[in-house]
Amino acid sequence: MKKGKFIVVEGLEGAGKSTSLETIIKTLNMLGISDPVLTREPGGTPLAEKLRYLIKHETEEPVTDKAELLMLYAARIQLVENVIKPALTEGKWVIGDRHDMSSQAYQGGGRQIDSNLINTLRTITLGDFEPDFTLYLDIDPALGLARAKGRGKLDRIEQQKLDFFYRTRQRYLELVKDNPKAVIIDATQEFDQVQIAVEQAIENFVKQVK
Amino acid sequence: MKKGKFIVVEGLEGAGKSTSLETIIKTLNMLGISDPVLTREPGGTPLAEKLRYLIKHETEEPVTDKAELLMLYAARIQLVENVIKPALTEGKWVIGDRHDMSSQAYQGGGRQIDSNLINTLRTITLGDFEPDFTLYLDIDPALGLARAKGRGKLDRIEQQKLDFFYRTRQRYLELVKDNPKAVIIDATQEFDQVQIAVEQAIENFVKQVK
Ligand SMILES: Nc1ncnc2c1ncn2[C@@H]1O[C@H](COP(=O)(O)OP(=O)(O)OP(=O)(O)O)[C@@H](O)[C@H]1O
Ligand SMILES: Nc1ncnc2c1ncn2[C@@H]1O[C@H](COP(=O)(O)OP(=O)(O)OP(=O)(O)O)[C@@H](O)[C@H]1O
Ligand SMILES: [Mg+2]
Ligand SMILES: [Mg+2]
Repeated sequence: MKKGKFIVVEGLEGAGKSTSLETIIKTLNMLGISDPVLTREPGGTPLAEKLRYLIKHETEEPVTDKAELLMLYAARIQLVENVIKPALTEGKWVIGDRHDMSSQAYQGGGRQIDSNLINTLRTITLGDFEPDFTLYLDIDPALGLARAKGRGKLDRIEQQKLDFFYRTRQRYLELVKDNPKAVIIDATQEFDQVQIAVEQAIENFVKQVK
Repeated sequence: MKKGKFIVVEGLEGAGKSTSLETIIKTLNMLGISDPVLTREPGGTPLAEKLRYLIKHETEEPVTDKAELLMLYAARIQLVENVIKPALTEGKWVIGDRHDMSSQAYQGGGRQIDSNLINTLRTITLGDFEPDFTLYLDIDPALGLARAKGRGKLDRIEQQKLDFFYRTRQRYLELVKDNPKAVIIDATQEFDQVQIAVEQAIENFVKQVK
Protein backbone atom coordinates (compact mmCIF):
# COMPACT_ATOMS: atom_id res chain seq x y z
CA MET A 1 0.00 0.00 0.00
CA LYS A 2 1.13 3.52 -0.81
CA LYS A 3 2.16 5.44 2.29
CA GLY A 4 0.10 8.44 3.40
CA LYS A 5 1.45 11.99 3.63
CA PHE A 6 1.97 14.11 6.73
CA ILE A 7 0.82 17.74 6.39
CA VAL A 8 1.44 20.21 9.21
CA VAL A 9 -0.05 23.62 9.95
CA GLU A 10 2.22 25.95 11.92
CA GLY A 11 1.95 29.49 13.24
CA LEU A 12 1.54 31.68 16.30
CA GLU A 13 -1.53 31.61 18.55
CA GLY A 14 -4.59 32.91 16.72
CA ALA A 15 -2.92 32.64 13.31
CA GLY A 16 -5.77 30.46 12.11
CA LYS A 17 -4.32 26.95 12.36
CA SER A 18 -7.42 25.23 13.71
CA THR A 19 -9.58 27.08 11.21
CA SER A 20 -7.30 26.00 8.36
CA LEU A 21 -7.44 22.34 9.39
CA GLU A 22 -11.09 22.32 8.33
CA THR A 23 -10.21 23.75 4.95
CA ILE A 24 -7.45 21.18 4.50
CA ILE A 25 -9.81 18.32 5.29
CA LYS A 26 -12.38 19.62 2.78
CA THR A 27 -9.75 20.18 0.10
CA LEU A 28 -8.27 16.71 0.52
CA ASN A 29 -11.74 15.26 0.42
CA MET A 30 -12.49 17.04 -2.87
CA LEU A 31 -9.29 15.52 -4.25
CA GLY A 32 -10.35 12.02 -3.23
CA ILE A 33 -8.32 11.75 -0.04
CA SER A 34 -10.74 10.99 2.75
CA ASP A 35 -10.60 10.38 6.49
CA PRO A 36 -7.24 11.92 7.29
CA VAL A 37 -5.99 11.41 10.84
CA LEU A 38 -5.94 14.69 12.78
CA THR A 39 -3.29 15.35 15.43
CA ARG A 40 -2.40 18.26 17.64
CA GLU A 41 0.84 18.98 19.46
CA PRO A 42 1.80 18.83 22.15
CA GLY A 43 -0.70 16.03 22.67
CA GLY A 44 -2.58 13.57 20.55
CA THR A 45 -2.00 10.42 22.64
CA PRO A 46 -3.06 9.68 26.23
CA LEU A 47 0.45 10.22 27.63
CA ALA A 48 1.18 13.16 25.34
CA GLU A 49 -2.03 14.89 26.46
CA LYS A 50 -0.96 14.49 30.11
CA LEU A 51 2.40 16.01 29.20
CA ARG A 52 0.58 18.82 27.36
CA TYR A 53 -1.28 19.59 30.55
CA LEU A 54 1.94 19.74 32.59
CA ILE A 55 3.62 21.92 29.95
CA LYS A 56 0.76 24.39 29.82
CA HIS A 57 -0.46 24.46 33.39
CA GLU A 58 2.41 23.73 35.80
CA THR A 59 2.28 26.51 38.37
CA GLU A 60 3.69 24.94 41.53
CA GLU A 61 7.28 25.59 40.48
CA PRO A 62 9.17 27.38 37.69
CA VAL A 63 9.52 25.11 34.66
CA THR A 64 13.07 25.25 33.30
CA ASP A 65 13.37 25.85 29.56
CA LYS A 66 15.12 22.52 29.07
CA ALA A 67 12.55 20.51 31.01
CA GLU A 68 9.85 22.12 28.86
CA LEU A 69 11.77 21.17 25.73
CA LEU A 70 12.25 17.56 26.86
CA MET A 71 8.58 17.18 27.77
CA LEU A 72 7.64 18.49 24.31
CA TYR A 73 9.88 15.91 22.66
CA ALA A 74 8.66 13.12 24.93
CA ALA A 75 5.10 13.94 23.85
CA ARG A 76 6.17 14.14 20.21
CA ILE A 77 7.89 10.73 20.23
CA GLN A 78 4.73 9.14 21.61
CA LEU A 79 2.62 10.76 18.90
CA VAL A 80 5.01 9.95 16.07
CA GLU A 81 5.62 6.32 17.09
CA ASN A 82 2.14 5.39 18.30
CA VAL A 83 -0.10 7.43 15.96
CA ILE A 84 1.52 9.18 12.99
CA LYS A 85 3.86 6.49 11.66
CA PRO A 86 1.29 3.68 11.99
CA ALA A 87 -1.32 5.81 10.15
CA LEU A 88 1.07 6.71 7.31
CA THR A 89 2.05 3.06 6.94
CA GLU A 90 -1.63 2.13 6.62
CA GLY A 91 -1.86 4.60 3.74
CA LYS A 92 -3.72 7.26 5.72
CA TRP A 93 -2.93 10.94 5.47
CA VAL A 94 -2.18 12.82 8.68
CA ILE A 95 -2.84 16.51 9.32
CA GLY A 96 -1.00 18.00 12.27
CA ASP A 97 -1.96 21.11 14.22
CA ARG A 98 1.70 21.98 15.01
CA HIS A 99 4.72 19.65 14.97
CA ASP A 100 8.49 19.93 15.33
CA MET A 101 8.81 23.40 13.78
CA SER A 102 6.88 24.77 16.77
CA SER A 103 9.63 23.61 19.15
CA GLN A 104 12.29 25.12 16.95
CA ALA A 105 10.42 28.42 16.74
CA TYR A 106 9.08 28.75 20.31
CA GLN A 107 11.88 27.08 22.27
CA GLY A 108 14.69 28.06 19.90
CA GLY A 109 13.45 31.54 18.92
CA GLY A 110 11.15 32.47 21.80
CA ARG A 111 13.08 30.92 24.69
CA GLN A 112 16.43 31.31 22.94
CA ILE A 113 17.60 27.75 23.56
CA ASP A 114 20.63 26.97 21.38
CA SER A 115 19.31 25.65 18.07
CA ASN A 116 22.12 23.07 17.84
CA LEU A 117 20.87 21.62 21.09
CA ILE A 118 17.33 21.39 19.72
CA ASN A 119 18.55 19.86 16.49
CA THR A 120 20.57 17.28 18.40
CA LEU A 121 17.54 16.41 20.47
CA ARG A 122 15.39 16.11 17.37
CA THR A 123 17.92 13.86 15.67
CA ILE A 124 18.35 11.50 18.60
CA THR A 125 14.60 11.21 19.11
CA LEU A 126 12.94 11.50 15.68
CA GLY A 127 15.82 10.57 13.39
CA ASP A 128 14.98 11.82 9.89
CA PHE A 129 11.21 11.76 10.32
CA GLU A 130 9.67 15.02 9.09
CA PRO A 131 6.43 16.38 7.59
CA ASP A 132 5.93 16.03 3.86
CA PHE A 133 4.44 19.51 3.69
CA THR A 134 4.15 22.43 6.12
CA LEU A 135 1.88 25.45 5.85
CA TYR A 136 3.14 28.30 7.98
CA LEU A 137 0.45 30.90 8.71
CA ASP A 138 2.34 34.14 9.24
CA ILE A 139 0.82 36.81 11.45
CA ASP A 140 1.89 39.71 13.63
CA PRO A 141 1.90 38.34 17.20
CA ALA A 142 -0.23 41.17 18.58
CA LEU A 143 -2.92 40.53 15.99
CA GLY A 144 -2.81 36.76 16.55
CA LEU A 145 -3.08 37.11 20.32
CA ALA A 146 -5.98 39.53 19.93
CA ARG A 147 -7.77 36.92 17.80
CA ALA A 148 -6.94 34.12 20.22
CA LYS A 149 -8.06 36.00 23.33
CA GLY A 150 -11.68 35.25 22.55
CA ARG A 151 -10.97 31.74 23.77
CA GLY A 152 -10.57 32.62 27.47
CA LYS A 153 -7.77 32.38 30.04
CA LEU A 154 -4.24 32.34 28.63
CA ASP A 155 -2.02 29.36 29.52
CA ARG A 156 1.62 29.44 30.71
CA ILE A 157 3.01 29.76 27.18
CA GLU A 158 0.43 32.27 25.98
CA GLN A 159 1.27 34.48 28.97
CA GLN A 160 4.78 35.18 27.65
CA LYS A 161 5.61 38.80 26.87
CA LEU A 162 5.12 40.02 23.33
CA ASP A 163 8.85 40.04 22.47
CA PHE A 164 8.85 36.27 23.06
CA PHE A 165 6.34 35.93 20.24
CA TYR A 166 8.25 38.36 18.00
CA ARG A 167 11.35 36.19 18.37
CA THR A 168 9.23 33.11 17.69
CA ARG A 169 7.80 34.61 14.51
CA GLN A 170 11.28 35.66 13.37
CA ARG A 171 12.52 32.09 13.80
CA TYR A 172 9.50 30.66 12.00
CA LEU A 173 10.27 32.90 9.02
CA GLU A 174 13.90 31.75 8.96
CA LEU A 175 12.90 28.09 9.22
CA VAL A 176 10.38 28.31 6.41
CA LYS A 177 12.82 30.13 4.15
CA ASP A 178 15.30 27.24 4.52
CA ASN A 179 12.69 24.51 4.10
CA PRO A 180 11.74 23.43 0.56
CA LYS A 181 8.81 21.46 1.98
CA ALA A 182 7.19 24.51 3.59
CA VAL A 183 5.16 27.44 2.32
CA ILE A 184 4.25 30.71 3.98
CA ILE A 185 0.71 32.03 3.96
CA ASP A 186 -0.16 35.61 4.87
CA ALA A 187 -2.57 35.03 7.73
CA THR A 188 -3.36 38.70 8.25
CA GLN A 189 -5.63 38.62 5.19
CA GLU A 190 -9.39 38.37 5.41
CA PHE A 191 -10.70 35.04 6.63
CA ASP A 192 -11.82 33.87 3.16
CA GLN A 193 -8.58 34.95 1.49
CA VAL A 194 -6.51 32.91 3.93
CA GLN A 195 -8.66 29.85 3.40
CA ILE A 196 -8.38 30.20 -0.40
CA ALA A 197 -4.60 30.36 -0.07
CA VAL A 198 -4.62 27.25 2.12
CA GLU A 199 -6.78 25.42 -0.40
CA GLN A 200 -4.45 26.32 -3.27
CA ALA A 201 -1.36 25.28 -1.38
CA ILE A 202 -2.90 21.90 -0.62
CA GLU A 203 -4.01 21.42 -4.22
CA ASN A 204 -0.48 22.16 -5.43
CA PHE A 205 1.04 19.76 -2.95
CA VAL A 206 -1.36 16.96 -3.83
CA LYS A 207 -0.70 17.47 -7.54
CA GLN A 208 3.04 17.10 -6.94
CA VAL A 209 2.82 13.88 -4.95
CA LYS A 210 -0.02 12.06 -6.68
CA MET B 1 30.29 30.02 52.07
CA LYS B 2 31.76 26.59 51.29
CA LYS B 3 29.60 24.64 48.86
CA GLY B 4 27.87 21.49 50.06
CA LYS B 5 28.50 18.03 48.62
CA PHE B 6 26.12 15.83 46.65
CA ILE B 7 26.12 12.16 47.68
CA VAL B 8 24.07 9.62 45.74
CA VAL B 9 22.92 6.10 46.58
CA GLU B 10 22.38 3.84 43.58
CA GLY B 11 21.31 0.24 43.08
CA LEU B 12 18.55 -2.08 41.93
CA GLU B 13 15.13 -2.30 43.61
CA GLY B 14 15.43 -3.72 47.09
CA ALA B 15 19.20 -3.22 47.22
CA GLY B 16 18.80 -1.17 50.38
CA LYS B 17 19.02 2.41 49.13
CA SER B 18 16.29 3.89 51.31
CA THR B 19 17.62 1.99 54.31
CA SER B 20 21.12 3.33 53.64
CA LEU B 21 19.93 6.93 53.45
CA GLU B 22 19.18 6.76 57.15
CA THR B 23 22.69 5.51 57.88
CA ILE B 24 24.19 8.27 55.77
CA ILE B 25 22.22 10.94 57.59
CA LYS B 26 23.36 9.58 60.98
CA THR B 27 26.98 9.29 59.88
CA LEU B 28 27.08 12.82 58.50
CA ASN B 29 25.46 14.05 61.67
CA MET B 30 28.15 12.35 63.80
CA LEU B 31 30.74 14.12 61.67
CA GLY B 32 29.13 17.50 62.28
CA ILE B 33 27.22 17.78 59.00
CA SER B 34 23.60 18.28 59.89
CA ASP B 35 20.31 18.76 58.04
CA PRO B 36 21.24 17.42 54.64
CA VAL B 37 18.66 17.87 51.90
CA LEU B 38 17.16 14.55 50.82
CA THR B 39 16.08 13.93 47.23
CA ARG B 40 14.71 11.02 45.31
CA GLU B 41 14.63 10.41 41.58
CA PRO B 42 12.68 10.52 39.50
CA GLY B 43 10.90 13.13 41.58
CA GLY B 44 11.76 15.57 44.32
CA THR B 45 9.97 18.66 42.95
CA PRO B 46 6.26 19.20 42.25
CA LEU B 47 6.66 18.83 38.48
CA ALA B 48 9.22 16.02 38.79
CA GLU B 49 6.85 14.04 41.04
CA LYS B 50 4.09 14.40 38.43
CA LEU B 51 6.53 13.11 35.80
CA ARG B 52 7.51 10.27 38.15
CA TYR B 53 3.87 9.27 38.30
CA LEU B 54 3.56 9.25 34.50
CA ILE B 55 6.80 7.27 34.15
CA LYS B 56 5.76 4.63 36.64
CA HIS B 57 2.03 4.35 36.06
CA GLU B 58 1.19 5.17 32.44
CA THR B 59 -0.97 2.28 31.27
CA GLU B 60 -3.24 3.81 28.61
CA GLU B 61 -0.62 3.44 25.90
CA PRO B 62 2.84 1.87 25.44
CA VAL B 63 5.55 4.27 26.61
CA THR B 64 8.40 4.41 24.10
CA ASP B 65 11.88 3.98 25.54
CA LYS B 66 12.92 7.42 24.37
CA ALA B 67 9.88 9.19 25.82
CA GLU B 68 10.64 7.50 29.14
CA LEU B 69 14.24 8.68 28.93
CA LEU B 70 13.24 12.27 28.12
CA MET B 71 10.72 12.39 30.96
CA LEU B 72 13.43 11.16 33.33
CA TYR B 73 15.76 13.92 32.21
CA ALA B 74 13.01 16.55 32.35
CA ALA B 75 12.38 15.56 35.97
CA ARG B 76 16.12 15.55 36.68
CA ILE B 77 16.68 19.06 35.30
CA GLN B 78 13.89 20.40 37.50
CA LEU B 79 15.43 18.75 40.56
CA VAL B 80 18.99 19.82 39.79
CA GLU B 81 18.13 23.43 38.93
CA ASN B 82 15.41 24.10 41.48
CA VAL B 83 16.57 22.02 44.46
CA ILE B 84 20.06 20.48 44.34
CA LYS B 85 22.15 23.36 43.00
CA PRO B 86 20.51 26.00 45.22
CA ALA B 87 21.05 23.78 48.30
CA LEU B 88 24.72 23.13 47.46
CA THR B 89 25.28 26.83 46.91
CA GLU B 90 23.82 27.55 50.35
CA GLY B 91 26.42 25.16 51.80
CA LYS B 92 23.97 22.33 52.41
CA TRP B 93 24.79 18.72 51.68
CA VAL B 94 22.40 16.79 49.47
CA ILE B 95 21.75 13.04 49.61
CA GLY B 96 20.09 11.55 46.56
CA ASP B 97 18.10 8.33 46.39
CA ARG B 98 19.15 7.65 42.77
CA HIS B 99 20.43 10.15 40.19
CA ASP B 100 21.86 10.10 36.68
CA MET B 101 23.60 6.72 36.98
CA SER B 102 20.15 5.12 37.24
CA SER B 103 19.23 6.35 33.75
CA GLN B 104 22.51 5.10 32.36
CA ALA B 105 22.04 1.69 33.99
CA TYR B 106 18.28 1.16 33.50
CA GLN B 107 17.72 2.93 30.19
CA GLY B 108 21.19 2.20 28.78
CA GLY B 109 21.70 -1.32 30.17
CA GLY B 110 18.15 -2.49 30.84
CA ARG B 111 16.38 -0.92 27.86
CA GLN B 112 19.50 -1.03 25.68
CA ILE B 113 19.24 2.57 24.50
CA ASP B 114 22.52 3.62 22.86
CA SER B 115 24.77 4.98 25.61
CA ASN B 116 26.10 7.73 23.32
CA LEU B 117 22.56 8.99 22.98
CA ILE B 118 22.13 9.03 26.75
CA ASN B 119 25.47 10.77 27.23
CA THR B 120 24.53 13.39 24.66
CA LEU B 121 21.25 13.99 26.42
CA ARG B 122 23.01 14.26 29.77
CA THR B 123 25.52 16.73 28.40
CA ILE B 124 22.98 19.00 26.74
CA THR B 125 20.79 19.04 29.85
CA LEU B 126 23.07 18.78 32.89
CA GLY B 127 26.37 19.97 31.43
CA ASP B 128 29.17 18.80 33.74
CA PHE B 129 27.05 18.62 36.87
CA GLU B 130 27.64 15.30 38.70
CA PRO B 131 27.55 13.82 42.21
CA ASP B 132 30.60 14.26 44.40
CA PHE B 133 30.28 10.72 45.64
CA THR B 134 28.18 7.69 44.67
CA LEU B 135 27.57 4.54 46.70
CA TYR B 136 26.43 1.70 44.49
CA LEU B 137 24.72 -1.09 46.43
CA ASP B 138 25.32 -4.23 44.40
CA ILE B 139 22.82 -7.06 44.62
CA ASP B 140 21.57 -9.97 42.56
CA PRO B 141 18.33 -8.73 40.94
CA ALA B 142 16.30 -11.75 42.08
CA LEU B 143 17.32 -11.17 45.69
CA GLY B 144 16.63 -7.43 45.48
CA LEU B 145 13.19 -7.93 43.95
CA ALA B 146 12.34 -10.51 46.61
CA ARG B 147 13.24 -7.94 49.29
CA ALA B 148 11.31 -5.18 47.52
CA LYS B 149 8.16 -7.24 46.99
CA GLY B 150 7.14 -6.70 50.60
CA ARG B 151 6.12 -3.20 49.53
CA GLY B 152 3.10 -4.21 47.43
CA LYS B 153 2.11 -3.90 43.77
CA LEU B 154 4.99 -3.57 41.30
CA ASP B 155 5.04 -0.48 39.05
CA ARG B 156 5.68 -0.38 35.28
CA ILE B 157 9.47 -0.47 35.66
CA GLU B 158 9.49 -3.10 38.41
CA GLN B 159 7.36 -5.36 36.18
CA GLN B 160 10.20 -5.79 33.66
CA LYS B 161 11.50 -9.33 33.15
CA LEU B 162 14.48 -10.45 35.19
CA ASP B 163 16.96 -10.20 32.28
CA PHE B 164 16.22 -6.46 32.15
CA PHE B 165 17.53 -6.17 35.69
CA TYR B 166 20.54 -8.39 34.95
CA ARG B 167 21.51 -6.06 32.11
CA THR B 168 20.94 -3.08 34.42
CA ARG B 169 23.21 -4.56 37.11
CA GLN B 170 25.87 -5.33 34.51
CA ARG B 171 25.84 -1.71 33.34
CA TYR B 172 25.95 -0.41 36.92
CA LEU B 173 29.09 -2.49 37.52
CA GLU B 174 30.73 -1.10 34.38
CA LEU B 175 29.81 2.48 35.28
CA VAL B 176 31.16 2.20 38.80
CA LYS B 177 34.40 0.62 37.61
CA ASP B 178 35.03 3.64 35.37
CA ASN B 179 34.03 6.22 37.98
CA PRO B 180 36.67 7.38 40.49
CA LYS B 181 33.94 9.11 42.51
CA ALA B 182 31.95 5.91 43.08
CA VAL B 183 32.33 2.88 45.35
CA ILE B 184 30.64 -0.49 45.26
CA ILE B 185 29.10 -2.03 48.36
CA ASP B 186 28.13 -5.69 48.56
CA ALA B 187 24.45 -5.36 49.41
CA THR B 188 23.86 -9.08 49.73
CA GLN B 189 25.51 -9.02 53.15
CA GLU B 190 23.57 -9.04 56.40
CA PHE B 191 21.68 -5.84 57.12
CA ASP B 192 24.17 -4.62 59.76
CA GLN B 193 27.21 -5.42 57.62
CA VAL B 194 25.86 -3.35 54.74
CA GLN B 195 25.16 -0.41 57.00
CA ILE B 196 28.67 -0.60 58.51
CA ALA B 197 30.13 -0.54 54.98
CA VAL B 198 27.99 2.49 54.11
CA GLU B 199 29.11 4.27 57.27
CA GLN B 200 32.78 3.62 56.52
CA ALA B 201 32.46 4.78 52.91
CA ILE B 202 30.87 8.03 54.06
CA GLU B 203 33.54 8.58 56.73
CA ASN B 204 36.28 8.09 54.14
CA PHE B 205 34.62 10.49 51.74
CA VAL B 206 34.12 13.17 54.38
CA LYS B 207 37.76 12.83 55.50
CA GLN B 208 38.90 13.41 51.91
CA VAL B 209 36.84 16.54 51.34
CA LYS B 210 36.94 18.21 54.77
N1 LIG C 1 -8.12 35.47 8.62
C1 LIG C 1 -8.81 35.69 9.75
N2 LIG C 1 -9.26 36.90 10.05
C2 LIG C 1 -9.91 37.15 11.21
N3 LIG C 1 -10.15 36.21 12.15
C3 LIG C 1 -9.71 34.97 11.90
C4 LIG C 1 -8.99 34.64 10.72
N4 LIG C 1 -8.66 33.33 10.77
C5 LIG C 1 -9.13 32.87 11.95
N5 LIG C 1 -9.77 33.84 12.62
C6 LIG C 1 -10.40 33.75 13.93
O1 LIG C 1 -9.33 33.92 14.90
C7 LIG C 1 -9.53 33.05 15.98
C8 LIG C 1 -8.32 32.14 16.11
O2 LIG C 1 -8.28 31.24 14.99
P1 LIG C 1 -7.79 29.75 15.19
O3 LIG C 1 -8.40 29.15 16.43
O4 LIG C 1 -7.99 29.01 13.90
O5 LIG C 1 -6.25 30.03 15.42
P2 LIG C 1 -5.13 29.02 15.90
O6 LIG C 1 -3.94 29.32 15.09
O7 LIG C 1 -5.66 27.61 15.89
O8 LIG C 1 -4.89 29.48 17.39
P3 LIG C 1 -4.20 28.65 18.59
O9 LIG C 1 -2.76 28.55 18.31
O10 LIG C 1 -4.43 29.51 19.77
O11 LIG C 1 -4.91 27.30 18.64
C9 LIG C 1 -10.82 32.29 15.72
O12 LIG C 1 -11.86 32.97 16.38
C10 LIG C 1 -10.98 32.40 14.22
O13 LIG C 1 -12.34 32.34 13.81
N1 LIG D 1 21.12 -6.18 53.92
C1 LIG D 1 19.83 -6.48 53.98
N2 LIG D 1 19.42 -7.75 54.21
C2 LIG D 1 18.12 -8.06 54.24
N3 LIG D 1 17.11 -7.18 54.05
C3 LIG D 1 17.46 -5.91 53.81
C4 LIG D 1 18.81 -5.48 53.74
N4 LIG D 1 18.84 -4.16 53.49
C5 LIG D 1 17.54 -3.76 53.36
N5 LIG D 1 16.72 -4.80 53.57
C6 LIG D 1 15.25 -4.82 53.51
O1 LIG D 1 14.91 -4.95 52.13
C7 LIG D 1 13.78 -4.13 51.81
C8 LIG D 1 14.18 -3.16 50.72
O2 LIG D 1 15.13 -2.21 51.24
P1 LIG D 1 15.10 -0.68 50.79
O3 LIG D 1 13.71 -0.19 50.75
O4 LIG D 1 16.11 0.06 51.57
O5 LIG D 1 15.62 -0.89 49.29
P2 LIG D 1 15.65 0.18 48.12
O6 LIG D 1 16.95 -0.03 47.42
O7 LIG D 1 15.35 1.54 48.63
O8 LIG D 1 14.49 -0.35 47.20
P3 LIG D 1 13.68 0.50 46.06
O9 LIG D 1 14.60 0.69 44.91
O10 LIG D 1 12.59 -0.43 45.68
O11 LIG D 1 13.24 1.78 46.72
C9 LIG D 1 13.37 -3.45 53.11
O12 LIG D 1 12.36 -4.21 53.70
C10 LIG D 1 14.64 -3.49 53.96
O13 LIG D 1 14.36 -3.51 55.34
MG1 LIG E 1 -5.82 26.13 17.37
MG1 LIG F 1 13.86 2.97 48.16
